[in-house]
Order: sequence, then C-alpha cells, then structure tokens
Amino acid sequence: MSLRFAILTVSDRSARGEREDISGARLAQAVAEAGWQVVAQSVCPDEIPEITAYLKNWTASGDVDVILTTGGTGFAPRDVTPEATLKVIERPAPGLAEAIRAEGRKTMPHAMLSRAVAGIRGQTILLNLPGNPKGVEEAWEVVRPVLAHAAALLKGDQAAEGSHRKAE
Amino acid sequence: MSLRFAILTVSDRSARGEREDISGARLAQAVAEAGWQVVAQSVCPDEIPEITAYLKNWTASGDVDVILTTGGTGFAPRDVTPEATLKVIERPAPGLAEAIRAEGRKTMPHAMLSRAVAGIRGQTILLNLPGNPKGVEEAWEVVRPVLAHAAALLKGDQAAEGSHRKAE
Amino acid sequence: MSLRFAILTVSDRSARGEREDISGARLAQAVAEAGWQVVAQSVCPDEIPEITAYLKNWTASGDVDVILTTGGTGFAPRDVTPEATLKVIERPAPGLAEAIRAEGRKTMPHAMLSRAVAGIRGQTILLNLPGNPKGVEEAWEVVRPVLAHAAALLKGDQAAEGSHRKAE
Repeated sequence: MSLRFAILTVSDRSARGEREDISGARLAQAVAEAGWQVVAQSVCPDEIPEITAYLKNWTASGDVDVILTTGGTGFAPRDVTPEATLKVIERPAPGLAEAIRAEGRKTMPHAMLSRAVAGIRGQTILLNLPGNPKGVEEAWEVVRPVLAHAAALLKGDQAAEGSHRKAE
Repeated sequence: MSLRFAILTVSDRSARGEREDISGARLAQAVAEAGWQVVAQSVCPDEIPEITAYLKNWTASGDVDVILTTGGTGFAPRDVTPEATLKVIERPAPGLAEAIRAEGRKTMPHAMLSRAVAGIRGQTILLNLPGNPKGVEEAWEVVRPVLAHAAALLKGDQAAEGSHRKAE
Repeated sequence: MSLRFAILTVSDRSARGEREDISGARLAQAVAEAGWQVVAQSVCPDEIPEITAYLKNWTASGDVDVILTTGGTGFAPRDVTPEATLKVIERPAPGLAEAIRAEGRKTMPHAMLSRAVAGIRGQTILLNLPGNPKGVEEAWEVVRPVLAHAAALLKGDQAAEGSHRKAE
C-alpha cells in the first residue's frame, strides 16, 4: 500500500529562514526510502493557529494519509506543537508517542521530555516527531513498521483487519 | 478478595450475530480461572451511546468491581470504545493501558496502535482490552496481578494500602 | 544550574498530624543531595482546592523551578492529586510519568497503578511522585537526570537547547 505523507516543520527560526530545515529534509528522504510519497511539505512558526491551519487543510484535502510534524514538542516557552495537534485530533492514539519515548529512553534519558502526541482526524493519522535531526530519524524508525497497517485500518480495509488478526 | 467483573464486547458484527464473540468468551473464562466472578456480560455495537449506557449502568449497580471491554480500540473508522470510556471515567489511570501496550510491543509492534484507556468511575475500575482473542488474553495477563490490590484501594481498604506500602 | 524546588506532601493523615511525613522529608533530602535548593515545603489534605492553591501560588511566585508532589496518585477514594494537577497544568509532559511507571514496573507491577501526571505551568515544571517512601525515591532517580535540562529549556536557554541537540 502506497502512503501519502505531509510533513510540517514547526520552528520559528526555520520559518524566518535563519536555520536550515535539516529535520524536515531528512524526514522527507526517510519517507521516500520507505517507498512512500511526500505530497506536501511546509515550514511554519511555533504558533498554534498556523500549525492547526496546516493540519486542518491537509486532513480536509483527502490527499494525505499521514501528517508528520517535526519540532515544537519540548519544554521551550514557544513549544506548542502538541497543544496545536490536540486541538484537531478527534481520536487520540497515545501508544505511538509512548513507543517513541520508550525506545528513545533506552539510549537517551532526555527522550522522556518529549511532549509529543498522536491521533486520528478523519481519515488521516497525525503524529508529532522530535525537532532534532537524530531524534526525528530514530522516532521514524519506531513508527514506520506500523503506519501502513494503521492507514489501511483507518480506510476501513477489512482485509487488513483480518490479516492483522491472523498475524497475531 | 473475590472480584466481580462485567465484560462488554464492542463489535458491530458480533452485535449483529455475524461473528462469534470469541474474545468475550475467552475473557470470561480467564476471569473464572483467576478465581473471580463474571456478574454481567454483553455485546454491543460500536456506538458511543450504547457503550456508555452499559458502563454507566454497571458502575451504578454497585455490583461490579471491574468492567473489561474488548474491541473498538483500534484505527478502524467505527472504533470508538476509548472515546466512550473517557466520557464516563472520573479519574484516569493511564498506567494500565501503558503497561499493556509496552508489554505487547515486546512481541508485536502493532500493539502501539491500541488506543485503549483505563480509569475509575465511582467504586468501579474500567479498562479497555484489545478486540482480538490472542491480544485480549495477553493484555489480561499484564493487568491481572494488580486488579485485586487496585479494587481493595478503591474500596478504601486501609489494610491493603498498608500492605502495599510494606511490600514495596 | 541550581534549581529551586517546592515539595508538597498530599496526605489527609499527615495533614492532621496522624502520620509522619517521611516521603516529604526524604524527597527534600534527595533534592539537597543533588545539589539543589528546597525553597518551600508543605503538607496538605487530599482536597483539590487546597492542592491547586499551593500549585498556583508556588508557580506564580517566580521562585520555584520545579514542584514535586508526593501522595494522592493511587486508587483510594480520596486520591485526587492528578486531577488537581491537571487543573493547573498548561502544557502536559506525559513522558515523565510514563518513564516513572515504566521503570517502576521492572521491579513492582503495582507501579502501573500510579495515576501520576506531569507538565508545565508558566516557567515551572509540575510533577506528581508516589506517596510511599521507597516509591518516591525510585521515581526521583528516574527524573533527576533530566530536570536541569528541562528547566533550562523552559527558561528559553538557547545554549541548553543547542547542547542537547549536539549531545544527541
């Protein structure tokens, strides 16, 4: 199953052009290497209305199966990506963020400081990933193996549901 | 301490009689094997009002220490068991669902897709378990060792509180 | 970086003087041993308005970087520390409580019953710890290594953000 991704880098400095968007670029490359498509990619500042506007527009388009954000999930005063994401999520999926933090803690205690959230809006999966390049790649590796199955279930694919049940 | 359980299978197909309720039956058997009682058991469709009606009625009855649900916690469009459960929970207990997902991930990455929640309403513990037979049995084994203690604390059993403190 | 802590013991019995506040005392000692300061310490009953009053006053004072609570996070009928804490948290940080529960489960399955929460209000980190002396010490050891970094980020310390990025 080919998945369609949108990637949003949330960073004041990258939005002002003061910092190269390395994490967004690496994430786009990782999606392509998994054999999937990046159909939209943007950079926006750490502002709730701007973040939610991207998340709402991409989910409403019908063209996006998974939205990945990078940045804005930490303890800095301007970090509000989880708050913006929770405003648009209809059905939370806490296990994805839990898994990323649990795997991250194995090598880096600071992984527990990620405030990332995940969930579903309409037929789209929304997932916050860390802002730094190494963290975003590690987090991607944790969730990559389950995204195709999650997206198939979300589309109401009964066969996917069946295969999952048998696989278990 | 003998615990009284109610089991709710949430499944459109089982509610319509199109699929045998294997998970509900296995869960009832597992409760009995632990030496506890199943005082109520039902099947309902994936509809928030019907799910919450069962949860409210069973908690209000005063006859149920623990309500277990099976089904409706995944990514399918109709999966709304966590949303229904959150509507009636008064005090969330996220650690139970976290533990089930963490243990599940050890053998099955898809365990991170469970959106299950847990918590307390009045004197009753509410807990979402997976819908598939193997998943529900594995999840049960994760929480079984702590349920008697949790229920004793919830009843205000100071001796239980003390023994826990000493045990630690 | 020297951190300033406030410690709140939430316990009806300790507030009435019927039980010595061992956990609060041990926590104060642990903070001092880490080279940090305890600038405020109190005991209050398991009542949401009293707990939130302490949390709000300490965060508003500008003198407290981290508030630690001990007690009131379990399944007893009067345990409401997480509910009180959630009322004042502006930005949740679920990973801290997840990490404490996950580490605790390695030696003690009952750790999954902790309903503790964590988050940020203004420039202060709020964190619920267990009520029993051994549990509070174990939980402290889980979060201690990340608190200085979290507090530095919260103050908008760009250097801290940079060092974290490089460290990863």
